[in-house]
Amino acid sequence: MPFIQVHLLAGRSKEQFEDLAKGITEVVVKVLGVAPESVWIEFIEMPKDRFSISGVLYENLKK
Amino acid sequence: MPFIQVHLLAGRSKEQFEDLAKGITEVVVKVLGVAPESVWIEFIEMPKDRFSISGVLYENLKK
Amino acid sequence: MPFIQVHLLAGRSKEQFEDLAKGITEVVVKVLGVAPESVWIEFIEMPKDRFSISGVLYENLKK
Amino acid sequence: MPFIQVHLLAGRSKEQFEDLAKGITEVVVKVLGVAPESVWIEFIEMPKDRFSISGVLYENLKK
Amino acid sequence: MPFIQVHLLAGRSKEQFEDLAKGITEVVVKVLGVAPESVWIEFIEMPKDRFSISGVLYENLKK
Amino acid sequence: MPFIQVHLLAGRSKEQFEDLAKGITEVVVKVLGVAPESVWIEFIEMPKDRFSISGVLYENLKK
Repeated sequence: MPFIQVHLLAGRSKEQFEDLAKGITEVVVKVLGVAPESVWIEFIEMPKDRFSISGVLYENLKK
Repeated sequence: MPFIQVHLLAGRSKEQFEDLAKGITEVVVKVLGVAPESVWIEFIEMPKDRFSISGVLYENLKK
Repeated sequence: MPFIQVHLLAGRSKEQFEDLAKGITEVVVKVLGVAPESVWIEFIEMPKDRFSISGVLYENLKK
Repeated sequence: MPFIQVHLLAGRSKEQFEDLAKGITEVVVKVLGVAPESVWIEFIEMPKDRFSISGVLYENLKK
Repeated sequence: MPFIQVHLLAGRSKEQFEDLAKGITEVVVKVLGVAPESVWIEFIEMPKDRFSISGVLYENLKK
Repeated sequence: MPFIQVHLLAGRSKEQFEDLAKGITEVVVKVLGVAPESVWIEFIEMPKDRFSISGVLYENLKK
């Protein structure tokens, strides 16, 4: 029953989400010995102005 | 002070959110004996291409 | 596939967790029309010195 | 390595997010003695019809 | 900057956590092209009486 | 209604939690103009063998 939440910056391609879902699930199934259908993954995208490092929004860091 | 986060697939009606909020709060108030105003619920919708089961995005499972 | 996280103060009885699990699941199944086995709930207990309201740890509020 | 998630109602200005990021990070760095670049903050906005108090969606509370 | 939260039942070995950390990070680095040190993973263990499926605590399901 | 979750390594003193609660709440009240009692903070401690950077558990990084 692993439930996995992946928080990442917005802007990735659909193929990248597909590859993350496939690859992470394979690791979890192999290491924990659980059934694939018991692995749920939620992807939470963070817009560049809703994520901060060092006290500065990521959008401003990049300017 | 229960804070409840409900992660669910996007696409439900406003009435369904109203009914979830009302019903879940009633259960929590009854079981825990807390004041209704101390029950906070956040609903987080997952688009079909941002949720995976068995290593496959939900959107692709349905194709 | 609703995944529900319930954050609450530590110190509840096992019967209360059983009743919350049963009651919340019944509401979700009824409102969303999903299968019961697709409703997962995680209970996260907050010790009284790890939760703050108004800038004061709950433990100190009660003194 | 503090990772901080701030759940708040949608509708704040960009300047408010900048000020929250700066102010919260300063507090964490000062109190914990960690490096600023190790403080990550994610802001999660809750639309008024996806947040409930007392079993009522915030949007309806305000009507 | 991916931040990943893995919720799983308590009772896994230290080696399993090491293998999950290593394997998931490798997938994320390869698919997203990010630096390894930007991948943070938090493991949150759920005791068997703090997780529910179908409205029944996992501990009771197993009896 | 901000609800704030602070994930940090275990091992901080009670005074540090008190100072974080007070300091973060002051920032949020000042920037957002909300009432202090509407600011809830949950502190989630991560043991050193339940947090990973670069694919290595923090405990092992320190050896």
